[in-house]
Amino acid sequence: MPVNRALVDYSGRMLRLRRVLDERGLAGAVVTSYANLRYLTGSSEEMWERFAGLFLPSSGESSLVVPELSGGSAAAFGELASLLTYSDQEGPGECVGKVLGAFGRRGRIGVEWSFRFRDLELLREKGRYSLQNISVMLSGMRAVKDDEELGLIKKACSVTEEGLEDTVSQIRVGMMEIEVAARLRESIVDHGGENVPFCLVQSGPNAAVPHTQPGRRKIARGDVVVIDVGCTVAGYNSDVTRVVSIGRLGSEQKRAMEAVLEAQDKAISKVRPGVRAKDVDKAARRVVTGAGYGENFVHRTGHGLGLEVHEDPYINGGNAEALREGMVFTVEPGVYLKGRFGVRVEDDVRVSSRGCEVLTKGRKVFV
Amino acid sequence: MPVNRALVDYSGRMLRLRRVLDERGLAGAVVTSYANLRYLTGSSEEMWERFAGLFLPSSGESSLVVPELSGGSAAAFGELASLLTYSDQEGPGECVGKVLGAFGRRGRIGVEWSFRFRDLELLREKGRYSLQNISVMLSGMRAVKDDEELGLIKKACSVTEEGLEDTVSQIRVGMMEIEVAARLRESIVDHGGENVPFCLVQSGPNAAVPHTQPGRRKIARGDVVVIDVGCTVAGYNSDVTRVVSIGRLGSEQKRAMEAVLEAQDKAISKVRPGVRAKDVDKAARRVVTGAGYGENFVHRTGHGLGLEVHEDPYINGGNAEALREGMVFTVEPGVYLKGRFGVRVEDDVRVSSRGCEVLTKGRKVFV
Repeated sequence: MPVNRALVDYSGRMLRLRRVLDERGLAGAVVTSYANLRYLTGSSEEMWERFAGLFLPSSGESSLVVPELSGGSAAAFGELASLLTYSDQEGPGECVGKVLGAFGRRGRIGVEWSFRFRDLELLREKGRYSLQNISVMLSGMRAVKDDEELGLIKKACSVTEEGLEDTVSQIRVGMMEIEVAARLRESIVDHGGENVPFCLVQSGPNAAVPHTQPGRRKIARGDVVVIDVGCTVAGYNSDVTRVVSIGRLGSEQKRAMEAVLEAQDKAISKVRPGVRAKDVDKAARRVVTGAGYGENFVHRTGHGLGLEVHEDPYINGGNAEALREGMVFTVEPGVYLKGRFGVRVEDDVRVSSRGCEVLTKGRKVFV
Repeated sequence: MPVNRALVDYSGRMLRLRRVLDERGLAGAVVTSYANLRYLTGSSEEMWERFAGLFLPSSGESSLVVPELSGGSAAAFGELASLLTYSDQEGPGECVGKVLGAFGRRGRIGVEWSFRFRDLELLREKGRYSLQNISVMLSGMRAVKDDEELGLIKKACSVTEEGLEDTVSQIRVGMMEIEVAARLRESIVDHGGENVPFCLVQSGPNAAVPHTQPGRRKIARGDVVVIDVGCTVAGYNSDVTRVVSIGRLGSEQKRAMEAVLEAQDKAISKVRPGVRAKDVDKAARRVVTGAGYGENFVHRTGHGLGLEVHEDPYINGGNAEALREGMVFTVEPGVYLKGRFGVRVEDDVRVSSRGCEVLTKGRKVFV
């Protein structure tokens, strides 16, 4: 399911950004992150350590500087920006010097928060620039998804859930976490996922630390298994967490599970345009705290989802930003009891005109 | 196969770096990249967008600032550095301010080439620091592998080759590239690989562009399929490219294949301590150029391999660095004919005391 380039208004996105740059008095921007390059040009190439950048002067011609290795695939973007390539031997210096001509030799240039020190030194060799963080302009644009983007996220959600349904039914006592993870990855790809950037299978006490990678622990009777997985479809991500109970839940497991489910429910019912992100977090946290697990809910309630697995809006107690229609994010309260077990459920939601559309439809708990 | 922490001298690595910092007159360093954090402390956590940094003053106590979420796993590093954690709500600012006390409020601080603009702004809030790129100090240390590291790379190579042997025998005309990739990933994990960070399966004309991701193209009779895959074992990578011929090679495919194999052979026989990286590149390029494909060998001959898939030493025409015993890198000449086909073979080698040890043992071409 590739993006239909004809349906995506890359030029419009670039133009909107350039208008904002111009209003803020910036000479232009240099965009180098994978997700923003993909958003603005459709380029889906991973650059690793090689330099690649979109040079957007606030007025004048835009340019894309990429390694020669990527010249072929980048050629598709010829209508958006002029394309300059460099070989491994030359390095990007000369190309960058050339395209910075459109910026003048001094002035303020916008860069992303992830802009790398090496690239910053490269700009400084070429002119007297001061840099300004413009990530918030880009993440603000990207936080609201259009119909094409929403379709891709929905597709990513559905293939993830299909893979989960297939794989969970095959889990048996004695299987290793990494075996379950490998099967789940394959099943999601079979259903049409392009890539599975993360796939956590945490059993028993391993689930008590949220980011633990799957290991060789064998799943045992009485375990709660937390599975946190997502895939990409044309670059857009899903992110789903489900709980699998191996045998009957113990009483403490049951209590934590119920708190998490109710917290998620309350948070989701809070979502609508104009509500502050932190109030969604608060709604979840209140339930978990009321159940006596406040200290055990060690992370934010959610994060935006799109070309990145973690992006704006962040649903945490410090974010007073108002939700806007079209934003897509996760709602994922969790409770973690060190050395014992963890539970978390995570669904992906969209802010609709009057409330909340839940994009993930499947069972939250498998018994 | 986890790293046996007792066998790895993390304190020694940190001490060596601090000595170099001190000699260069730096107040200290802030290390934030995944690979360098893992090399210096053993921490294997992916931080995503959250800040994590090792603060190494040239003298005085070292500190590790990590998100609260990672506090549990980072606690293992308590003997190496004092541990400070921050919640999502607080952010890292206060912790960073505190640990920078050991650096003084001004002076030169070393950072990596990948140090991010956001983090640079954070340092600037806390003192009048000038930053200097110290990546080359770290990559120089990491380029030479000790026995423990070599053992992990060898293990990663062998499980990758076992996965390739199993999977290639299952390839049939009509299978999609992504199906082959999914099976190969699963097989490598079955054999003991922990993670498969990349898995390219490029058939027919798709192999003519080196970095093309696997897609839904069905493998056809007469195709050359290029498979470029690697896995990690305790964080250390393998990187192997094999060619699968579906039916008999055509005469041009055969000619390109022979050139690539001979180029690789010549490059490998060049490898020994003291030889310049660029002379290894030249040895491969001379053969390919002699066969009339000079223009079609569009990338460097190889790259270092370790905690990162691409690291020092880079084997390209611009690198006059002398090879040292213990360096590990790929040798991977290729020929790409646009719209038609591509061929590349890639093996992983180690500079031994008198020559070259090839770490990948399997067949290069499957027919």
